[in-house]
Amino acid sequence: MAELNFIHIIDYLGTFAFAISGIRLASAKQFDWFGAYVVGLVTAIGGGTIRDLLLSVTPFWMLQPSYLIVTGIALLSVILFGKYLIRLKNTFFIFDAIGLGLFVVVGIEKSLAAGFPFWVAILMGMITGSAGGVIRDILINEVPLIFRKDIYALACVIGGLVYLGCYKLSFRAEITQLLAAISIIVTRILAVRYHISIPVLKGNDDENPSKIL
Amino acid sequence: MAELNFIHIIDYLGTFAFAISGIRLASAKQFDWFGAYVVGLVTAIGGGTIRDLLLSVTPFWMLQPSYLIVTGIALLSVILFGKYLIRLKNTFFIFDAIGLGLFVVVGIEKSLAAGFPFWVAILMGMITGSAGGVIRDILINEVPLIFRKDIYALACVIGGLVYLGCYKLSFRAEITQLLAAISIIVTRILAVRYHISIPVLKGNDDENPSKIL
Amino acid sequence: MAELNFIHIIDYLGTFAFAISGIRLASAKQFDWFGAYVVGLVTAIGGGTIRDLLLSVTPFWMLQPSYLIVTGIALLSVILFGKYLIRLKNTFFIFDAIGLGLFVVVGIEKSLAAGFPFWVAILMGMITGSAGGVIRDILINEVPLIFRKDIYALACVIGGLVYLGCYKLSFRAEITQLLAAISIIVTRILAVRYHISIPVLKGNDDENPSKIL
Repeated sequence: MAELNFIHIIDYLGTFAFAISGIRLASAKQFDWFGAYVVGLVTAIGGGTIRDLLLSVTPFWMLQPSYLIVTGIALLSVILFGKYLIRLKNTFFIFDAIGLGLFVVVGIEKSLAAGFPFWVAILMGMITGSAGGVIRDILINEVPLIFRKDIYALACVIGGLVYLGCYKLSFRAEITQLLAAISIIVTRILAVRYHISIPVLKGNDDENPSKIL
Repeated sequence: MAELNFIHIIDYLGTFAFAISGIRLASAKQFDWFGAYVVGLVTAIGGGTIRDLLLSVTPFWMLQPSYLIVTGIALLSVILFGKYLIRLKNTFFIFDAIGLGLFVVVGIEKSLAAGFPFWVAILMGMITGSAGGVIRDILINEVPLIFRKDIYALACVIGGLVYLGCYKLSFRAEITQLLAAISIIVTRILAVRYHISIPVLKGNDDENPSKIL
Repeated sequence: MAELNFIHIIDYLGTFAFAISGIRLASAKQFDWFGAYVVGLVTAIGGGTIRDLLLSVTPFWMLQPSYLIVTGIALLSVILFGKYLIRLKNTFFIFDAIGLGLFVVVGIEKSLAAGFPFWVAILMGMITGSAGGVIRDILINEVPLIFRKDIYALACVIGGLVYLGCYKLSFRAEITQLLAAISIIVTRILAVRYHISIPVLKGNDDENPSKIL
């Protein structure tokens, strides 16, 4: 029971941090409160929704209203404490990283439970953790950040590989989950702290989208 | 039978109005006829498709070709009567509002029939009514209008709450449906007539998307 | 067995060509390797994924890792041979057209096998062939190319109608598949070679997206 509560708290903190990132980007684009709420919600639940549609199970947020409520609290926080929240940037980064760790582990376990092999589960972990941010960026009409900045989706893959390694070594489930989540959190912190990026694919100067295909 | 026909006529009018809105926006972006047809179709059926995927039922438009046909008639109308149609702006606004009322009620009832609680049904009603317009705006590469202008998705939620109220008061199904739809139509008319908007979430000047996680 | 291998080779070549188109467009937008891989993958498997979600079957690429591997090879090719690949433009165009022919036929047959009527199957063939490119263009934040240039989605519809015609004439399955695919390939070649386009829907000068509902 204690453990259940602990995981719930992380789940809510992660949802809150994801929703805040969506709401703040929406506010920078002059969205109204309702639009900001939708963008925040989609950021928080989008990845898990795509995962659940691909796995053909009922989307997780349709089974309990807590994700809608947490997003509402996130919106209220931005409305009331907007300027103050910005100073908490580092706190949110940590919430976001911890939430990411949890979301990826949940995504992996849900996929394995549905009978899919590990390579699908690792992909689903990545989708759970990063697709919400991609949809967020599509909604605010920007090129998705994760395709160009820091290591985000790759951190999810690393966490998936750590999970696989621990699993193959027959670690206990709790240890496996913890190590996978920690590897994601540490990767995120190192990537942002030391500006570690994936190399950019060099485009040709004479190449522009309308010329191809 | 008479009632069935009446609902069908509203369904077709709403589909037509939604498709016209997509086709006209596509034409402003120099889309070809085919592209305009696709945008019109997605505007008309996109919301219900997402709803059906989330509810895990076969998308409604795959069960009868009428939505494809109505969209084809909408495209033909724009090609033939483009300039004249613009003068009918108010007529289309009314079609759109009536269609919205119907779509939301259908979305709510389909979700309840699938065994989901009311809060999911209200959300599904909103998705049914407004997600098509969001996908339309993504396809034409614009920030979704409903996040910034008038009251649109919120009208769907108001209709959902009216539906819930009537249901709890044990009103007859027809009365419940009618009152919910009317509340949506009236909200839309009042919002557009008196330029009622939801407050904009103020972004900070020093905030830009690339700075936030 | 020989035939199976032949179809597999076409499937891989088509996946490779689709992935290359996504990766090259991503590189023109300064995506990192990971982002380019995701865009390439989505271009290759996006259409079939939407089809499978609509048909309510497990997305095809979750059943075998070959699509992920082929996309990885495509990324590696662009990283290693970027400049040289551009000179192979015509080769890729042919791969893309052949892949398109196969993807559409697969989409049609999967839909018929799921019990849907021909008009749904033709639509699913079109979605299989062209939705991946639409998602690709959304991810790189461009207006989808296929809505404005050449004949692409329409080639899929033509292939679908040829399939239907052959089917009604009781042709053997292999002949039906081959003629449908060839009609798509020929349509694509003619459209690009002779710059055949669908008429553009004329927008009104005084019309801009924010003015329309």
